[in-house]
Amino acid sequence: MRAAPGARNPAELDLLRQIRRRTRSGGPVILGIGDDCALLRARPGEEIAVTTDLNIDGHHFRLSWHPPESVGHRTLARGLSDLAAMGARPLAAFVSLGLPPTLVRPGQGGASWISRFYDGMLSLADKSSVALAGGDLSESPVALADIVLIGAVPRGNALLRSGARPGDAIYVTGALGASAAGLARMAGHARASKPTARLRIPPSWAPLLQPHLFPQPRLRQGAWLRAHRAATAAIDLSDGLSIDLAHICEESRVAAEIDATAIPLGPGATLEQALHGGEDYELLFSARPDVPIPRRIATVPVTRIGRIIRYRAGNPAITLFMPTGSRPLQPRGWQHFT
Amino acid sequence: MRAAPGARNPAELDLLRQIRRRTRSGGPVILGIGDDCALLRARPGEEIAVTTDLNIDGHHFRLSWHPPESVGHRTLARGLSDLAAMGARPLAAFVSLGLPPTLVRPGQGGASWISRFYDGMLSLADKSSVALAGGDLSESPVALADIVLIGAVPRGNALLRSGARPGDAIYVTGALGASAAGLARMAGHARASKPTARLRIPPSWAPLLQPHLFPQPRLRQGAWLRAHRAATAAIDLSDGLSIDLAHICEESRVAAEIDATAIPLGPGATLEQALHGGEDYELLFSARPDVPIPRRIATVPVTRIGRIIRYRAGNPAITLFMPTGSRPLQPRGWQHFT
Repeated sequence: MRAAPGARNPAELDLLRQIRRRTRSGGPVILGIGDDCALLRARPGEEIAVTTDLNIDGHHFRLSWHPPESVGHRTLARGLSDLAAMGARPLAAFVSLGLPPTLVRPGQGGASWISRFYDGMLSLADKSSVALAGGDLSESPVALADIVLIGAVPRGNALLRSGARPGDAIYVTGALGASAAGLARMAGHARASKPTARLRIPPSWAPLLQPHLFPQPRLRQGAWLRAHRAATAAIDLSDGLSIDLAHICEESRVAAEIDATAIPLGPGATLEQALHGGEDYELLFSARPDVPIPRRIATVPVTRIGRIIRYRAGNPAITLFMPTGSRPLQPRGWQHFT
Repeated sequence: MRAAPGARNPAELDLLRQIRRRTRSGGPVILGIGDDCALLRARPGEEIAVTTDLNIDGHHFRLSWHPPESVGHRTLARGLSDLAAMGARPLAAFVSLGLPPTLVRPGQGGASWISRFYDGMLSLADKSSVALAGGDLSESPVALADIVLIGAVPRGNALLRSGARPGDAIYVTGALGASAAGLARMAGHARASKPTARLRIPPSWAPLLQPHLFPQPRLRQGAWLRAHRAATAAIDLSDGLSIDLAHICEESRVAAEIDATAIPLGPGATLEQALHGGEDYELLFSARPDVPIPRRIATVPVTRIGRIIRYRAGNPAITLFMPTGSRPLQPRGWQHFT
C-alpha cells in the first residue's frame, strides 16, 4: 500500500492526497493509509475471509455507459457480495485504481470522475459499515479498479459452496434478471444512438437501471443464514443462476432441479435473463428441508426455487422444470459487452 | 475471488485451471481457491496486515525487458517487502493478472509466459514460506499484476514509520543502488539495440542484473527487529532512500542526518543510485542509540548510516554529509521508465 512518488506528477499526487483523505481508520481498522501495510483486528476465534476482484473497462463496466458513481458502487458491491456469500462481516476494503491520463490529469474532468467514483463507493461503504482503509492510483492505458475485501467469520462457521446434500431445498434472495435486463436496455440504447464518449440515458429509466447500476450486496442475509446455521451451502449470483448453481453442484458433488415458474423475476426481466444474466448479487443457498426459512430476511424476500438431488453420471447436473416439460440447464454465462 | 466463466473463452478457462492447480491451501490457509472467499487463520492475539500493489506494464515493469520469471518474482517481492517492513509474517498471497489477448490465447506463447510468470512467483513464495492462495486472470489491453499480501503480527507490536525519536541511529540492511544500476544498464542496452519485442540481454550480465530482476524481501530481518523490539521505526526501500527516509521523518515528525560515505553501495551502483534509486527492497530502520544492533541479521549485513535529529521549521528534513561538506537531501524518486 505504497505511493510511488517518483513515478507521479504533482496533479496525480494531489489527487492521491484527496483520495486518501476519504479513507479512514477506526473500528476494526487499527491503522489505515500511511504505513507499509494497513493493520486490522478481528475478534478472538474469527477466521479472515479475503476476496479480490479485478474490474476492467470493456469487460466489467464501460466508461462510456456507466456513470462513475455506478463504477465505484459496483466495484465495492462485487467484493462485498463475496463476503455476504460466506456469511462474513466486512472489516475493510482496499481499492487500486488504474486510469488513463485523461482521467488523472486535471482540467479534463479527471478529478471530477475520480471524485464521483469515490462518492459511489463510499456511499455503499457507509451503508455497509465497512471502512475503505486503502486506496491507490496509477496511470494505466485502460481504466481498471481492483477491489480487495477483508472480512471475519467465526471459526469453522463460514457458509461454503460444498455443503449441499440431496433433499435440501434451494432458495434465492430478492429477484433475478433485472441487472441483465437493465444492461440490455442500455446496450440497445447505445446501438440506436450516435457513438459518443458518454451514453445519454433518459432520466425516466433510472428505476429500471437501478438493479444493474447499483446492486445491493446481501450482507445481512448472509450473516443471518450463518448465525442461524440455516444454510448448508451458499454462493452469490454474480455470474448467473445457471453457472453459480453449477458451482454449488460441483463443489457439493450433487445435482439440482429448478422449477422455472418459481424463479422470482426482477422488473423487466425475462426467464433467460434470470437464468443466465448474472450481476444480480442475490444469494443462492440450500437448506435442509426441515429447517424453516423465513419469507423475508432483513426485509428482502426469500423464495424456494428447487431442490438438491443425488448426482448420477450421465445425467445433467441441473434440470429445469417448465409447465411444458423438463430440460437440462446448461451453465451459460452472460457475454456482458459482446 | 471468482472466475467469471461467462466472459471467458475455453483457452482462458484452461489457463485458469492450470493457474489454480498451482495455488494451495495448508498452514494458515484454511480454504484457498474454489469458494467465494479464501479463509485464513491467524494466531490468537495477532493483528492482520494487508498490503496491495498494482504493477502495470510500462510503469512498474516492461514486458519487452523483464523476463516473465522476473515479473512474477518482483510482483510478489513488492508485497512481501511491505510485510517485512512491519515485521509481519506472511499468511497468504493473492494475484490478479490482466494480460493482452496475445498472452492469454494459446499458440502465441501466452501459456508459456503465464507459466514462467508463476515459476518466478512460486519460487519466491516457497522460499518465503507463503502460500499463493488465490489467482485470477482477465484479458486486458495492458499487462498488469495486482498483488495482495496478508500477514499477521502480534497485537500492538508492528514496526511503524512513526516511532523514530531524536538521537536514534539510522540503519539499512544489505546494499543500495544495485537495482537502479541494473535497470540503467538494461535501459542503455535497449537504447543501443534495434527495437524488438524482447530485449536480448547478454547472459554474462546475469549477476549484475540479479538485484533488479530478483530482489530479496527482508522478511527474516523485519521479524528479528520486531521480535527483539530493536527498531523504533522501519520502512522498506521501494521508492529510494531519499523518499523513504522522508516518509519516516514525516510520520515521526523528526529530521535526519545521513553520512554519504557510510552508505553501502551495491555492485556497480553510484551514490546517486543508492540515494534515489528505489526497488532495492532493503529495510531502513531507526533504533535507540543504546540498543545493540548486530552487524548481520540472518546473514544480511546491517550498516549504520546516520542519525535522527529534532525537526526545526525552515531546516531541511534530511541533511547529507559528504567529505566536502553537507547539503540538504531532497526526496527524489526514480523515473523508472521515462
